Amino acid sequence: MVQPPKHILNGFRVLDMTHVLAGPTATRLMVEMGAEVIKIELPPIGDVGRSLPAMKNGRSAYYVQQNRGKKSVCLDAKREDGKTVLRDLIKKSDVFVENFSPGAIGRLGFPWETVHELNPQIVMCSLSALGQTGTLSALPGYDYIAQAYTGIMGVTGDPDGAPAFPVAGIGDVAAGTHAAAAIGYALLHRERGGQGQYIDISLADAYMGAHELNLQIYSVSNGEIEPTRSGKHHYAVCPLGLFRGKEHWLCIIALQPQWPNICRAIGRPELIDDPRYDINEKRVAASTEVIEIVQSWLDEMPSDEVSLGRLEAERVPCAPVLRISEVVMHPHMLERGIVRTVSDPKIGDIVIPGMPLRFSDFEHNAPLESAYLGEHNTQVLDNVLGYSTEQIDELSERGVLQANPDT
Amino acid sequence: MVQPPKHILNGFRVLDMTHVLAGPTATRLMVEMGAEVIKIELPPIGDVGRSLPAMKNGRSAYYVQQNRGKKSVCLDAKREDGKTVLRDLIKKSDVFVENFSPGAIGRLGFPWETVHELNPQIVMCSLSALGQTGTLSALPGYDYIAQAYTGIMGVTGDPDGAPAFPVAGIGDVAAGTHAAAAIGYALLHRERGGQGQYIDISLADAYMGAHELNLQIYSVSNGEIEPTRSGKHHYAVCPLGLFRGKEHWLCIIALQPQWPNICRAIGRPELIDDPRYDINEKRVAASTEVIEIVQSWLDEMPSDEVSLGRLEAERVPCAPVLRISEVVMHPHMLERGIVRTVSDPKIGDIVIPGMPLRFSDFEHNAPLESAYLGEHNTQVLDNVLGYSTEQIDELSERGVLQANPDT
Repeated sequence: MVQPPKHILNGFRVLDMTHVLAGPTATRLMVEMGAEVIKIELPPIGDVGRSLPAMKNGRSAYYVQQNRGKKSVCLDAKREDGKTVLRDLIKKSDVFVENFSPGAIGRLGFPWETVHELNPQIVMCSLSALGQTGTLSALPGYDYIAQAYTGIMGVTGDPDGAPAFPVAGIGDVAAGTHAAAAIGYALLHRERGGQGQYIDISLADAYMGAHELNLQIYSVSNGEIEPTRSGKHHYAVCPLGLFRGKEHWLCIIALQPQWPNICRAIGRPELIDDPRYDINEKRVAASTEVIEIVQSWLDEMPSDEVSLGRLEAERVPCAPVLRISEVVMHPHMLERGIVRTVSDPKIGDIVIPGMPLRFSDFEHNAPLESAYLGEHNTQVLDNVLGYSTEQIDELSERGVLQANPDT
Repeated sequence: MVQPPKHILNGFRVLDMTHVLAGPTATRLMVEMGAEVIKIELPPIGDVGRSLPAMKNGRSAYYVQQNRGKKSVCLDAKREDGKTVLRDLIKKSDVFVENFSPGAIGRLGFPWETVHELNPQIVMCSLSALGQTGTLSALPGYDYIAQAYTGIMGVTGDPDGAPAFPVAGIGDVAAGTHAAAAIGYALLHRERGGQGQYIDISLADAYMGAHELNLQIYSVSNGEIEPTRSGKHHYAVCPLGLFRGKEHWLCIIALQPQWPNICRAIGRPELIDDPRYDINEKRVAASTEVIEIVQSWLDEMPSDEVSLGRLEAERVPCAPVLRISEVVMHPHMLERGIVRTVSDPKIGDIVIPGMPLRFSDFEHNAPLESAYLGEHNTQVLDNVLGYSTEQIDELSERGVLQANPDT
């Protein structure tokens, strides 16, 4: 266990009853900002993230990525003597985060009212797919469920075929970030004399915010314009979309101010003022032609490097659609530490995403290690709660505290 | 202009030199949490978001969605007498947010060093597509550019065809949320005796975090497993994907614990222990068969309502892939205020996404109105800076301050 870095949240204690992705993302950001995060995991297996790939030497790299620097207490919070320990921890913590299904934390005996009564200063945050309230809240939910219900999935992919979804946890991570943000402001409120409060964060709320114009354009047009998925090319801007390069699909964007630039880049300056294409509306109407003009230029280029170089020289926004193998070794990503290698005592080196919040007064990308299940049972109950060795041993013997050093 | 709501950030002043989406998202969250947000817009047109659709009566609903509650000062910050006003505002503000291209704010004369010198307590945050540093930082960037470079676009869509991208601002909004989070913690630090500091947020950093396992699984497998896009069905979990319903595409997910549930829901309980399908690995290997089993059941159902009802009754995670017209009228979304109608004096009613941060001690979804370009020139220079009427009039006459009530 490496100590939390010297950072903004030094002195704050976070009680973390989260699993898999959305919740752990929130507390991951907090531990990287110096909080003491105590992760409470339920026996026998703890966070189900401990069984997600990649697995090596009994350890999950998935778990490592999300839980570095967090202390692990494996506590049977379903038993009365386990609940006592949890109550004591709530009294000693600044923040309590959970992402069970809505209602489950209440059935466990720790709804907000109880938590608030135990510790009026604590900030509690629940994360869920669809929210703590509302007709859909009782349904089991995952990232893609929220993506489907919010219409985000429906505006992704081929208009004549199926929608598409990313093989990535965009909504979970967005919800985790929203939670970390809300918790930060709730702590600021507390610091200025306020009490603790309850925060309800959902993937659906987070996804919905990404509709920069889909809802308003539908409503202002009285339903005449209903945005939907647009395939390889954007329905309202041209050229904006995916073109076949020599080694990659290439994303190329020319909004109105960049039309002259792309014409110069592809060696067709005469098109800048061509009355067939001079404004975006005309280009959208003639999109088949415009796309073909760009594509045929690309087809004659010797490599993506040359094509992208010419576009970049004219400051046309463009990018290769990178494969994962290219992302993990991209110089920019490595230089920025967006892609970073961490060392795990069981797995060895693992490449993971870096810390997305960068502060000038603190170091970026803290060196932290992940805990095995229950690694900090004794340390936490001793140091934080002041339990005696006898008490802790008895809780272990009774199975209230458990541990598994092989995880 | 409606007053900022009684909320956490009352008493904090945010100087907002942002445009379009990522930056305005950050300050949107802050104004909904009660901050006084002063948006500095450059003449003659201000935030280019003021020209984005839907337009009605000269007003952009796009702008309204992102900028409700913000004061507008239209200031020519490229002129020396405009810079003087900006310097005075920096001295009087708690936060300074900008999302020009990296380096532009420095060329304008307001790099972090200068801002910090003017006001050591101010928190400054820059947002960009690819970050303030690194080899790619100088490139012009938009959301899809960051999506392509981070590999998120590459893991979305049909594996045999082109990648797909959402017609939505997922990366911009994620970066805005990351920025709001970081600013909150920097304010907490300041409240506890620290100084202001500089924050560098990028869409690429935000997108990269969504790779829950793509980077680590590639590295731990020594490059043997390279996740890529997976089409309608997930490559590693079965069934998990998109099925043809009667009225919608349906997203249906059965992880290992839900396999018995889905077998019961589709009336095939004998499959629960069928040795061909009993564990996920076998189902992935036989995914064509498993998908067909689910699809053929759906084909016999009379409606999505019935199919989804049966799945929900067995607690199988499932959702219809909704269209925008369905999202805006969904009872759950309306009940939660995730989808809300706001009133604009020029456009009338507009449906926009609700506030994604919900605090128990404060009202959700503040009623706020958007400003025309330069609406608060006089109010801000008078109340905040104490300029005399003569000074303000002179700045207006010289064109340092401008306004356009028709926006």
